[in-house]
Amino acid sequence: MRFVSDNNASICPEVLAALSEANRGLAAAYGNDPWTGRLNEVLGAFFGTEVRAFVVATGTAANSLALSVLSPPYGSIYCHPDAHIVTDECGAPGFFTSGAQLELLGGANGKLSAATLTAALDAHPVSVHSVQPAVVSISQATELGTAYRPAELAALCDVAHQRGLHVQMDGARFANALVYLGCHPGDVTWRAGVDVLCFGATKNGALGAEAVVFFEPELVRDFELRRKRAGQLLSKSRYVSAQLLAYIESGVWRGNAERANALARRLAEAAGRRLLHPVEANEVFLELGIDEKTSLRAAGFEFYDWGSPGSGTVRLVASWDQDERHVEALCAALAAM
Amino acid sequence: MRFVSDNNASICPEVLAALSEANRGLAAAYGNDPWTGRLNEVLGAFFGTEVRAFVVATGTAANSLALSVLSPPYGSIYCHPDAHIVTDECGAPGFFTSGAQLELLGGANGKLSAATLTAALDAHPVSVHSVQPAVVSISQATELGTAYRPAELAALCDVAHQRGLHVQMDGARFANALVYLGCHPGDVTWRAGVDVLCFGATKNGALGAEAVVFFEPELVRDFELRRKRAGQLLSKSRYVSAQLLAYIESGVWRGNAERANALARRLAEAAGRRLLHPVEANEVFLELGIDEKTSLRAAGFEFYDWGSPGSGTVRLVASWDQDERHVEALCAALAAM
Amino acid sequence: MRFVSDNNASICPEVLAALSEANRGLAAAYGNDPWTGRLNEVLGAFFGTEVRAFVVATGTAANSLALSVLSPPYGSIYCHPDAHIVTDECGAPGFFTSGAQLELLGGANGKLSAATLTAALDAHPVSVHSVQPAVVSISQATELGTAYRPAELAALCDVAHQRGLHVQMDGARFANALVYLGCHPGDVTWRAGVDVLCFGATKNGALGAEAVVFFEPELVRDFELRRKRAGQLLSKSRYVSAQLLAYIESGVWRGNAERANALARRLAEAAGRRLLHPVEANEVFLELGIDEKTSLRAAGFEFYDWGSPGSGTVRLVASWDQDERHVEALCAALAAM
Amino acid sequence: MRFVSDNNASICPEVLAALSEANRGLAAAYGNDPWTGRLNEVLGAFFGTEVRAFVVATGTAANSLALSVLSPPYGSIYCHPDAHIVTDECGAPGFFTSGAQLELLGGANGKLSAATLTAALDAHPVSVHSVQPAVVSISQATELGTAYRPAELAALCDVAHQRGLHVQMDGARFANALVYLGCHPGDVTWRAGVDVLCFGATKNGALGAEAVVFFEPELVRDFELRRKRAGQLLSKSRYVSAQLLAYIESGVWRGNAERANALARRLAEAAGRRLLHPVEANEVFLELGIDEKTSLRAAGFEFYDWGSPGSGTVRLVASWDQDERHVEALCAALAAM
Repeated sequence: MRFVSDNNASICPEVLAALSEANRGLAAAYGNDPWTGRLNEVLGAFFGTEVRAFVVATGTAANSLALSVLSPPYGSIYCHPDAHIVTDECGAPGFFTSGAQLELLGGANGKLSAATLTAALDAHPVSVHSVQPAVVSISQATELGTAYRPAELAALCDVAHQRGLHVQMDGARFANALVYLGCHPGDVTWRAGVDVLCFGATKNGALGAEAVVFFEPELVRDFELRRKRAGQLLSKSRYVSAQLLAYIESGVWRGNAERANALARRLAEAAGRRLLHPVEANEVFLELGIDEKTSLRAAGFEFYDWGSPGSGTVRLVASWDQDERHVEALCAALAAM
Repeated sequence: MRFVSDNNASICPEVLAALSEANRGLAAAYGNDPWTGRLNEVLGAFFGTEVRAFVVATGTAANSLALSVLSPPYGSIYCHPDAHIVTDECGAPGFFTSGAQLELLGGANGKLSAATLTAALDAHPVSVHSVQPAVVSISQATELGTAYRPAELAALCDVAHQRGLHVQMDGARFANALVYLGCHPGDVTWRAGVDVLCFGATKNGALGAEAVVFFEPELVRDFELRRKRAGQLLSKSRYVSAQLLAYIESGVWRGNAERANALARRLAEAAGRRLLHPVEANEVFLELGIDEKTSLRAAGFEFYDWGSPGSGTVRLVASWDQDERHVEALCAALAAM
Repeated sequence: MRFVSDNNASICPEVLAALSEANRGLAAAYGNDPWTGRLNEVLGAFFGTEVRAFVVATGTAANSLALSVLSPPYGSIYCHPDAHIVTDECGAPGFFTSGAQLELLGGANGKLSAATLTAALDAHPVSVHSVQPAVVSISQATELGTAYRPAELAALCDVAHQRGLHVQMDGARFANALVYLGCHPGDVTWRAGVDVLCFGATKNGALGAEAVVFFEPELVRDFELRRKRAGQLLSKSRYVSAQLLAYIESGVWRGNAERANALARRLAEAAGRRLLHPVEANEVFLELGIDEKTSLRAAGFEFYDWGSPGSGTVRLVASWDQDERHVEALCAALAAM
Repeated sequence: MRFVSDNNASICPEVLAALSEANRGLAAAYGNDPWTGRLNEVLGAFFGTEVRAFVVATGTAANSLALSVLSPPYGSIYCHPDAHIVTDECGAPGFFTSGAQLELLGGANGKLSAATLTAALDAHPVSVHSVQPAVVSISQATELGTAYRPAELAALCDVAHQRGLHVQMDGARFANALVYLGCHPGDVTWRAGVDVLCFGATKNGALGAEAVVFFEPELVRDFELRRKRAGQLLSKSRYVSAQLLAYIESGVWRGNAERANALARRLAEAAGRRLLHPVEANEVFLELGIDEKTSLRAAGFEFYDWGSPGSGTVRLVASWDQDERHVEALCAALAAM
């Protein structure tokens, strides 16, 4: 019974059907196909503004390619210590940017704030000797399963822009945050000041489909050349674009995220006081005893330790296609503790 | 009527079916799934030796990741001026290796030879001032649609190994070369001395599936870390591995390549004396008059100029799913010239 | 009256004389000269063990080249938030390593400790997803003007080595720490477990002379190739080596450092309770009122704000050739506050 | 008797004196000193136009830093196969640019031409798949000891600029070319269209002093940040700037180069029909028999093989401080062959 990660999930029927539908004979490669041709329009309608979107194969590539157009090699990128780019990308930001430095800013529940960013920027005057502050990178939903409110984002982006930094959002679980917040996609992106969103569909029902969505055309810069030289310009892009179109247009982004979030909330309720962070997406963080971890695993439940295996902090993730009975079983096990 | 590239082709039924079959509930991510678990064994049986294989999203990534474990940042990579890594990857080798230098060696029909490699290595004594010869990179089939014979490869690899270089093969059209040569896959890879093969299925029927196949375990080195930080470790790797398994086990690699090659030969015969290189795969290079190019395009045929648009050199590519009638029409048009 | 930095100092007579003495007609370039030829022996005698030493032009280059042979591109480098490599090298470590990630560990008085390193390594289990812990980088004297004791270093290096990390020491002010501690150079380097020392003479009397000193021959790896491609292999290396030889053999390393340290102690005594850190080298950190900063500057004293200009933290540095009267004047001004 | 390279030469008296003169107490570091403060003005007067100049430690660093502001990481740099950046910098251009590709253009006597550049650019249409032509890099004097005439340069630069490329000149032996040509420094740089000159003094009498001279202010871009993170911002820059000021203002650049060139011409005359290229600087290329090479070396003459040691091609270099008697001896030996 896997609660390890939503990337354990399968492809949802709507997306799988789209792959078959896109499979009609020859089509231009490298994004010159009709499916990719519709992407800007469909994503633009979703976000309520003009966008320029580019598909890539993975979330890691999406994040780091976005960062590489926003930061010079000697730039610095402000982010949370728990950010995926810090802990789970094997140094991809340094690779794609050719050396930019990550600057970690603490914050409760996985969130940066306007205040911590201001303090960090004030503490280090910029000169030819220092790295040059370039980007604020945030995750929505955060790596701790919480969701930034529009006002939190707006305050943070305001500081960033006033200080000459751009804002990139890791949206590997963007749909989960969105259905929790119940707001318009624009409210937690461009309207709040986010410059580039890495919009992930893979964890929420796609085979593998990530779009880097620019809300400011001039920020695109040399993105296409960087994508190509990173081996992220997919020859048969139509199959990635078709996934994204189906994901948006069928509304399955919402349905899948709602189910995953609802399951996570059930786990959270069962866990009670062991809960470490508000559950505002599909992730549940618990503080367990070492014995409790062991007995859950012995009972067949799989999940990640969060941080040191010697601690009792664990992460449970509910996927869009999580088996109802597994969730029930885990809820029962948690409630029985 | 597209003869632009075999990456315009669709997914063949065998591979599409494999995607559906792999779509069974939750599975471990990042290559810890059962499909990826079978990959070394299935590819090992195909090549007739133990291998270690790693899937990635694109041929560009496959080539450059392979090069990045074989060459230090100050290494040099010997290759043909028409190699894909030289002309079509937007500098990916320089990016992935953090600066390795491409050394171009001419050669008829897109092939390097033992003699040109020897001469090049002799001409430039190595010191702390020079780049360090590290890799010979070749393509099979070559970028000019020809196929290295086993003996040609063995002679070339011999020189490379004697001089301390490794040999990487770009096999974006490996199946096409193999069915032309009619030999065992091992004969043009490890038995001839190839160290790493970038084995592509995308152009020949897959959605997007490339495997970097190491024939020497110790050469794998830090490949997995480099793949991860390049955003090429796919979370849902099962869907890429499943494509490759189907591609090999169903034998469709052969059937698709045979059809594509046969169509290319028909085009070559129709083109007659305009043919520039032997057709040993699914690509046909012709020298046309400018007017002839224009009239073919006016008749609805799409294809690439090869090199300068001001020249008359063109490339025609036949795909596994090329429409028979389009091939007939193009043959007729060529014959009528 | 400059108390800005010891890099404002001039060349001391012993070193200047060595330049003239080395200026005898033609000599082999790129380190094949007799002066460079003596370097390993002279530095080996100084440290009391066999070493392999390489000269470079700047401390930034020394640090980052050393790090680049100790860390892979996806490595992580543990260091203090105040480390020069973090705050004052414009991202050089990321550049030279092609992307390694700096991991900041707090610590009083600019020092890392065995305990904080252990805790940090325990908190982040290593996998293919994470950066790979590779190096601990420390400064001696620290950036806050303190000196690691031999036992502190040994404990820290022990943890590092047990966990598979190497230890690099930024010794831009190594002489200052050494004369303070009064110990043997080996006691705070190889005997304590330091693998590589970046031994700086520039701040303490040279024109520009930094040596990267390896205490383990096998760690040298490809240092020479990396130095060359970084533009740090000086054609007329004899003039850098000659500086270092004079610096060591004349004993001026000691005399200059003793004078600078003594002047710093006088400043510290005058500053009294405003002192922020023990003065164990030639740097003095004070917490002043904003008005006090302003009035000192109005009186002609130049110095750095440490961190935010809006704070009252300042750094005073005493050089080997600091004018006695300027020190007296500053002491008087401080005492009068 | 060394004819190996002009980097075997010593420091000329004028430059050595300047070091002493600059050695007056404390001075601001990192180029904020009065010597560096005069550099733009003095070099501007020399070239007859406004310039922005930056000192670095080596010619390799000068070239590659210049290239790194002119070329994106996916750019291409057109240069001669014998260019120092190709053969003698251990891949520095790839390192500093983070991956730019060198494109080699043949040409007699080490020179590129407008025609070969045009042909090369025409042969490879640019797209997202290709590297992006960015820079033409030439050497003056060339690596084969010849000098571009102003009209040759103007024609070449014209093509470059029309096609959107910038022109960088490696001027490690700029003075030698200049005294041969007898023209104004501006005639073979900015007036001809050169954008950036790497102006070397090291080979012609300095200890180590290279200036990157921009003739277009906007091309400076982020040079200072790139210099810093490359460890090429020298803390005690005054001593490098003072060398350059003395080199220019004393006129020793001319006197030293005239002497070196004159000695080279004498060697060339003695070598007679063995001469491979016109001698227009201080380098002499000869085709000798293997036995002749051996006997010259046996007689105590040191020099480089040019290319393969198995060939008879050798390079003799005359330095500003070459011993007259050594030159006479070598002339006699050559004449006796």
